[in-house]
Amino acid sequence: MASKYIDIDTLRFILYEVHDLQSVLDQPRYKDYDLEAVDLFLNAIKDFSDKELFPYFREMDATPAHFKEGEIIVHPQIREYMKKGGEMGLIGALFDYDIGGMQMPNIVVTASAYIQEAANNQLPGYIGLTLGAAELIVHFGDKFLIETFVPKMLTGDWGGTMCLTEPQAGSSLSDIITTAVPDGDTYKINGQKIFISAGDYQGVKNVVHLVLARIKGAPAGTKGISLFVVPKNRPDSAGNLVSNDVNTLGDFQKMGQRGYCTTHLSFGDKNNCRGWLVGEPHQGLKYMFLMMNSARVSVGRGAAAITMAAYRASLAYAKERPQGRSLTPSGKKDVAKEQTLIINHPDVKRMLLLQKVVTEGALSLILLSARYQDLSTAHPNGEVRDKYLNLLEIITPIAKTYPSEMGAVSVSNGLQILGGYGFCTDFVLQQYHRDIRIFSIYEGTTGIQSLDLLGRKVTMNNGKAVELLLAEIGDCVNEASGYEELAPYAQKLRTKLELVKDVLQFLLPFAKKGEFERFLSDATVFMEFLGNIIIGWLWLDMAIKAQDALRQQDPTYTKDFYDGKIHAMKFYFKYEIPKTKALADILMNSEVLTLRKDVGL
Amino acid sequence: MASKYIDIDTLRFILYEVHDLQSVLDQPRYKDYDLEAVDLFLNAIKDFSDKELFPYFREMDATPAHFKEGEIIVHPQIREYMKKGGEMGLIGALFDYDIGGMQMPNIVVTASAYIQEAANNQLPGYIGLTLGAAELIVHFGDKFLIETFVPKMLTGDWGGTMCLTEPQAGSSLSDIITTAVPDGDTYKINGQKIFISAGDYQGVKNVVHLVLARIKGAPAGTKGISLFVVPKNRPDSAGNLVSNDVNTLGDFQKMGQRGYCTTHLSFGDKNNCRGWLVGEPHQGLKYMFLMMNSARVSVGRGAAAITMAAYRASLAYAKERPQGRSLTPSGKKDVAKEQTLIINHPDVKRMLLLQKVVTEGALSLILLSARYQDLSTAHPNGEVRDKYLNLLEIITPIAKTYPSEMGAVSVSNGLQILGGYGFCTDFVLQQYHRDIRIFSIYEGTTGIQSLDLLGRKVTMNNGKAVELLLAEIGDCVNEASGYEELAPYAQKLRTKLELVKDVLQFLLPFAKKGEFERFLSDATVFMEFLGNIIIGWLWLDMAIKAQDALRQQDPTYTKDFYDGKIHAMKFYFKYEIPKTKALADILMNSEVLTLRKDVGL
Repeated sequence: MASKYIDIDTLRFILYEVHDLQSVLDQPRYKDYDLEAVDLFLNAIKDFSDKELFPYFREMDATPAHFKEGEIIVHPQIREYMKKGGEMGLIGALFDYDIGGMQMPNIVVTASAYIQEAANNQLPGYIGLTLGAAELIVHFGDKFLIETFVPKMLTGDWGGTMCLTEPQAGSSLSDIITTAVPDGDTYKINGQKIFISAGDYQGVKNVVHLVLARIKGAPAGTKGISLFVVPKNRPDSAGNLVSNDVNTLGDFQKMGQRGYCTTHLSFGDKNNCRGWLVGEPHQGLKYMFLMMNSARVSVGRGAAAITMAAYRASLAYAKERPQGRSLTPSGKKDVAKEQTLIINHPDVKRMLLLQKVVTEGALSLILLSARYQDLSTAHPNGEVRDKYLNLLEIITPIAKTYPSEMGAVSVSNGLQILGGYGFCTDFVLQQYHRDIRIFSIYEGTTGIQSLDLLGRKVTMNNGKAVELLLAEIGDCVNEASGYEELAPYAQKLRTKLELVKDVLQFLLPFAKKGEFERFLSDATVFMEFLGNIIIGWLWLDMAIKAQDALRQQDPTYTKDFYDGKIHAMKFYFKYEIPKTKALADILMNSEVLTLRKDVGL
Repeated sequence: MASKYIDIDTLRFILYEVHDLQSVLDQPRYKDYDLEAVDLFLNAIKDFSDKELFPYFREMDATPAHFKEGEIIVHPQIREYMKKGGEMGLIGALFDYDIGGMQMPNIVVTASAYIQEAANNQLPGYIGLTLGAAELIVHFGDKFLIETFVPKMLTGDWGGTMCLTEPQAGSSLSDIITTAVPDGDTYKINGQKIFISAGDYQGVKNVVHLVLARIKGAPAGTKGISLFVVPKNRPDSAGNLVSNDVNTLGDFQKMGQRGYCTTHLSFGDKNNCRGWLVGEPHQGLKYMFLMMNSARVSVGRGAAAITMAAYRASLAYAKERPQGRSLTPSGKKDVAKEQTLIINHPDVKRMLLLQKVVTEGALSLILLSARYQDLSTAHPNGEVRDKYLNLLEIITPIAKTYPSEMGAVSVSNGLQILGGYGFCTDFVLQQYHRDIRIFSIYEGTTGIQSLDLLGRKVTMNNGKAVELLLAEIGDCVNEASGYEELAPYAQKLRTKLELVKDVLQFLLPFAKKGEFERFLSDATVFMEFLGNIIIGWLWLDMAIKAQDALRQQDPTYTKDFYDGKIHAMKFYFKYEIPKTKALADILMNSEVLTLRKDVGL
């Protein structure tokens, strides 16, 4: 029976064939893994997701996390999930063997998290944040911090969080005012943090917060921010846990992801909250941002997974639900005929194909980013690592944004396929529609990702990253041109590469002239423009791999499977790629309309 | 203080100046109304909405309608609203004086309903459906039906509904199986109806259902459907109300519009449900569809109103919330400076302007449709009426779809402006986001509206409607060309008129060849294409009126107000109109990708 929430064949095809997992496994760090081991692992994850995640998806939404008498009540499965995930090694999967990790490639961990998120997007964050917090300690903390906190986090006994946002600061981290006052070996922490995912919940033994705060007297702005480990319960001199004056003030009630708690924390209400400095003073934001690429790709991954799950649900419905009839050549319908399945209506097929190209395009993008991450750290050659680091830097904001933005469009199309039922809580589509809406806000909104893409990544290292990226796309175009069936699409994509250059030639002079607000005013439009082209490239690449398999009569998947990939690529080039024309038009329009203050709003 | 949910100045400007309300009031039917009377009426509606609708908007969402022990529990304000609305004459506003109506122009009633829907979109449907059901009885029913049912409906004592959808039929009305068996003067009704808005609820004395059913032996398909009045309680021979065997089976729980009940009804479980035939047998669908234009425009109006309310909410937030700083010419931010209001960030301004052009464009479209409706019925000259009927027919599917589809995009942008708060239930944006999602499904999905537009409306009367519509746009283009500031935009729109013709020249031959599935396969894309151009036209028209006011130093509104309209028009032409290029590309692409069955889905 087909899985209800994931197309595992497509995941494998993209992971193994399209992104050539073997080339990642070839790196010395991953020498203990081969394709068979990965396959077994992913099977185990699928099984785990079937049993421990998917069955609780609707239930967790119906019984949201909430604040009651000082604590946050959550679904009991959260503790089960953390415990079992810890036992399976999922929290430490990426870590070195010597600190209890599995030294697994990022791309495999990404595939594993994607499966889990497709099954139930409210659970994996509890592990994801614990992992992220542990990662920060391992990378930048001293031996004491690592030994004290990390082992319990990797077993899932203790949770972890990232505490950035404050009520008055939101996206503007310069304005963080949580304070840290030196006091012996530690610091006294005072302040409030909001929107802290997995910040505290019933049953968790301890939560280790990674908190951005300002040491008294630190410079203003982002250069004065330090990073601290601030556990909910701290070890006293005898090694016993005592309360650390970290107070839970509430749980934000949300439209979606309702099983995933989002807390409001207050540190040091009784002036008895201690934090341990991580690394050097005033380097906190730098440390946080070194982890930010994976955090951002993780958000994109979650959105991509929801997009997949919604696609599966609407596809299953379209294949089961009879309604209406096809048109006869007279333009009429023959009411004496049986109703047809709705998948046979061209408009429904269009919506399903849209979901398919967004779903699988987003998945390919996420795995590509993970591949870049692996090669940028694990490749033995420094130049190669540098190349992939550049590619990772430029692809990250897109990997965060495309699945979040286009995923939401895709899910909405899925809901539409169910008609009135799609809007009803008896059907799952409305939940995906609510859940996915946060992803373009998490970890830097789309607007902020777009400023990062155009303002930082495109211009960094004299444009090296964008040059490398366009070269990668160019290679694919050249390769596809050698296939008769693919050549016309390759040609289309080639013209889009020229269009990217035209757009940049139009925009970059504003930066050179110091007109930065003008340079960046349509950054979000640029994001949509470049994201669309990237997905076109990834589809062309998938079509090449499918063509190869067809030529070689590769029996791994059916002919229909491979044909479907080529068909979807054509769909993408017919229905999605043309948008780039409109977007380039906007970007190269010299009229300035969003910088004036007095626009009658 | 600015209203929280509506920009009443803009409503007045579009109603009075742009759509020239006076020219509607000039019709003999409306001789008792002048601009002053309308203004007083709209003030009263605004006041009514402030007091009776808006305060209950959040509360009704938090306490959804639900089924309990055989009845549907709803918020008590619903009965209050019906009663007070009845007292104010709102239910019968459109009706002739001689049956207790106010003979008010549709365009005024539309403005009134729009204000109410912006205040609280969960309430006006209770009146709207009662009005629609009464209208069907008045137009097609006999004296007995009118006298028995309509007066109590117009006072709001009794509710009314339209019962079309059945579990197995959904959008496919050909497949309705509810039966009607002649039995004396009436018919015995048997069957089930789902998704019946306002179908039954605690406290209502009676509900008058207008039910589509098949008289035994009727032809198959839509040609065998008749229309019946089937009250929840029927008058017995003594004139007392007795139960009519209409049973409430449940209330669909929905993602949004949660205060607005959506019922599942069963007729004749004890074989004791009586219905009165309306008009002739087998003409039911025709009658229903004669009312369908206003039903569809009403749906578009509701979506447009939610779009407005969300825009007001995010605009207010953007004007109050400080966050981040503007870029200096060095490309850096000066952290010593105070934070700026988020409205000053170009990307936030872009999102607000997008909301503005969609909100006000949708409002203009809805009022235009209502104007067409008025002139197509109330104008003394038959040829003029025919012209406006053609225009009404072609604009209706667009008036239903544009506000529903682009309104949802606009609301989502509004949510984005609030960042994380937008996703939290403490803020209203998430409710608008949930509420608006049903509008592209109500009364025929976007796919069905698009088939209607391209398959019926474009081709009807040898293309007369589309010709008239393009001529109207052409007139506006010619007029705008006479204004120096507007001429470049007029020129852009002129090229889009040519593009419409090119697209139709490409598509229509498929219909002529009998390739109807191919002709209509991208109907939804055509809908988006034509809708986009229509809104461009309406913005150009608004800009003309604003320019005139500026030239004449018209003191009705501020200079900033008029400048803002012209600015928004320019924004629309920069950011929205270019999409038509991409859409035309898709429409004129000869590759066929959604008609094949075997596409690997």
